[in-house]
Amino acid sequence: MSRIQVKAVFFDVFGTLVDWRRGVAREASSVLGPLGYTLEWLSFAEAWREQYQPALEQVRCGQVPYSKLDAVHRRMLQTILPRFELESLDDAVLDRLTQAWHRLDAWPDVPPGIARLRRRFLLAPVSNGNIALMCDLARRNDLRWDAILGADMAKDFKPKPALYLSAAAAFNLQPGDCMMCACHSSDLAAAAANGLRTAFVARPQEFPGISDTMPNIPVDFACESLLDLAAQLGA
Amino acid sequence: MSRIQVKAVFFDVFGTLVDWRRGVAREASSVLGPLGYTLEWLSFAEAWREQYQPALEQVRCGQVPYSKLDAVHRRMLQTILPRFELESLDDAVLDRLTQAWHRLDAWPDVPPGIARLRRRFLLAPVSNGNIALMCDLARRNDLRWDAILGADMAKDFKPKPALYLSAAAAFNLQPGDCMMCACHSSDLAAAAANGLRTAFVARPQEFPGISDTMPNIPVDFACESLLDLAAQLGA
Repeated sequence: MSRIQVKAVFFDVFGTLVDWRRGVAREASSVLGPLGYTLEWLSFAEAWREQYQPALEQVRCGQVPYSKLDAVHRRMLQTILPRFELESLDDAVLDRLTQAWHRLDAWPDVPPGIARLRRRFLLAPVSNGNIALMCDLARRNDLRWDAILGADMAKDFKPKPALYLSAAAAFNLQPGDCMMCACHSSDLAAAAANGLRTAFVARPQEFPGISDTMPNIPVDFACESLLDLAAQLGA
Repeated sequence: MSRIQVKAVFFDVFGTLVDWRRGVAREASSVLGPLGYTLEWLSFAEAWREQYQPALEQVRCGQVPYSKLDAVHRRMLQTILPRFELESLDDAVLDRLTQAWHRLDAWPDVPPGIARLRRRFLLAPVSNGNIALMCDLARRNDLRWDAILGADMAKDFKPKPALYLSAAAAFNLQPGDCMMCACHSSDLAAAAANGLRTAFVARPQEFPGISDTMPNIPVDFACESLLDLAAQLGA
């Protein structure tokens, strides 16, 4: 058991806790399939997500005002419609499609891992996802959070310092009392730069063959699942 | 069962869910008793709380910038020290005393009432209390919230419209899809003015002999407990 003591653990959500790629593919298929569309559903999900960093960067650099990730997802969707010959979809269908991100399944270790970590630590998502989106994912996957922190609190997106610092402050904690858990090294690098502890969890199935299975920066913990993290933290 | 349909129920916390008066008295006694103080503990709790509205009003009117209720409680405490001959207490003791507000017990109907309402509605505290304070009260009393909304989201205090409107918006809901539950008519009047539904819950023990047992404004529901509210809502 490590001598590193933290009081709260913060979680990245998309990729780290939930399988957005297969979930969005499944939900898109269930919305568009009955309308007669037969896309490469996984490619569609990947293309949608590819718009993520460019869309967030517009907000982070001040070019576009902050809006909920739900609204950003909707704008991202708009940009890929031509590529999939979906320009004729009406707003109601596009809105239903955007709800796909509210109906994603957690990796199998997540519900028991969160339940176990909760016995020892304050827990919150610190995601770019908005509160309503986080609530729906928590209900669907039975994740019990102490609070929903992240983008809607900070009115900005990771990896901006405000996300990590506002989360620690919300719990009346110093950054060093908090740990960020994510499957993306860039998220952990930003957390560490703001004084938080870091835990890398490998999610090889986020993008099979592409996702990092090891962090590419120094981290306090590297683990294979949230249950592994709980064991390493003595929880 | 009423035909009024809501998707989320928001809760006032101090008075409505937790017994701050006896809780603060008990905690103050446990901090100050061992130091040799013998106050009228309930009078001390009441005097502390009497500073609440004047302190919040300084923020609401823009005279003092927003700060967490924890910090406001600390300033309120400072103003009553002379009256109780507590001027010699040092900062560490005053900080411990302020933590009294994190260790309050819910009224007995609250944990089962919240558990029952949760099966049908999104639930969140919409309190003037800050997130860390709400988290500690939730952990102590086993209250499972979907999110912690209220003052720390809106950076202002009830009954300002931003509190009610930001809470509905956080859940991607219209105000009319949300219901405010409180034991204070003033809170419900403000909620209604912003388009929310209202539920009055009687808390005669908040201030025995003084607390209203009936709302003094029209409300959608008047109930005697959260279990009564759940029954009236068909939950």
